[in-house]
Amino acid sequence: MKDNPLDILIRQLASLPGLGPRSARRAALHLITRKQESLYPLSAALEQAAQTIQECATCGNIDHINPCRICTDPQRDHTTLCVVANISDIWAIERTKSFKGIYHVLGGVLSALDGITPEELRIKELKARVEKSPPHEIILALNATVDGQSTAHYIIDTIQNEKSKISRLAHGVPVGGELDYLDDGTIATALKSRSSL
Amino acid sequence: MKDNPLDILIRQLASLPGLGPRSARRAALHLITRKQESLYPLSAALEQAAQTIQECATCGNIDHINPCRICTDPQRDHTTLCVVANISDIWAIERTKSFKGIYHVLGGVLSALDGITPEELRIKELKARVEKSPPHEIILALNATVDGQSTAHYIIDTIQNEKSKISRLAHGVPVGGELDYLDDGTIATALKSRSSL
Repeated sequence: MKDNPLDILIRQLASLPGLGPRSARRAALHLITRKQESLYPLSAALEQAAQTIQECATCGNIDHINPCRICTDPQRDHTTLCVVANISDIWAIERTKSFKGIYHVLGGVLSALDGITPEELRIKELKARVEKSPPHEIILALNATVDGQSTAHYIIDTIQNEKSKISRLAHGVPVGGELDYLDDGTIATALKSRSSL
Repeated sequence: MKDNPLDILIRQLASLPGLGPRSARRAALHLITRKQESLYPLSAALEQAAQTIQECATCGNIDHINPCRICTDPQRDHTTLCVVANISDIWAIERTKSFKGIYHVLGGVLSALDGITPEELRIKELKARVEKSPPHEIILALNATVDGQSTAHYIIDTIQNEKSKISRLAHGVPVGGELDYLDDGTIATALKSRSSL
């Protein structure tokens, strides 16, 4: 009973992040009762994505051209390299429209708990890239977690050279954040890194 | 910029119920970075669903065979007809495994606000079906809302015949429900329909 087309579709939808069994059922019903407006366009979009979207050999981003549109954009500052853990971090930074440099995706962060070693991340590629043409600045835009910060330290040890300045994102009170709801570590860091007005 | 394959895929995913722009981005990234395990199977499932799943001409359910597996199941009680508003209601009732009759999907409920008239629902088909072979019992399993109940009344007026008993779902305290959190209408109905122990 579980191998009929409907159940297969529901199971595939339920495996997507953000969709549980219940919303997968709703989505499947939505798709099947609206074949023209919903199912066929999604099917076509998936097929086109499967054929055209690939990983950028330079930075690890995904795009329909390789190297990706960011790496090939002459208007971007190719001397500022932003190192991120995942592709979604590129998207998050791009949405701010406040960074005009280029990226390097690690594919994760070091993690003793999950057994992620430097060999599994694109650190070797980062080292080669930085050695080939040292950027003016390397921004380590990693999560402010233990794993993120230990990855940052490992990268600093690995890629340090005399030509590139290495920086990290500021830590502090999130914009719109209320002190009362913030953890002690954030408040302590924000105090230590206070700026004069 | 918004017509590249990635943005098209994200837009299509975001149009599914239960997926907003943020989760659609996460789902798209999940699909593209896991083509073998996720994108291709979903694409294949959509294609198979598009080709095989159709509306049952008898009851309005969807299935890969027509008439559907419920309508063609000889083990089900074809003399008990359960009238529901939507296909998802069939699934909800089937999950309880406590109903062994057959179904009729109206495709919605009457609604003065949304301008849904009897002509837009499968009431004509229900009438024809009931006249052709009157079931012993017709269960109106419609939502306990104003629209659901006025639809039930309209159906009773339309399909009434001497051979079929018409019933509706019981109203009362939901199993696991706490009186303190229930609305007055439900408590009043549960009191009125109390059963002796």
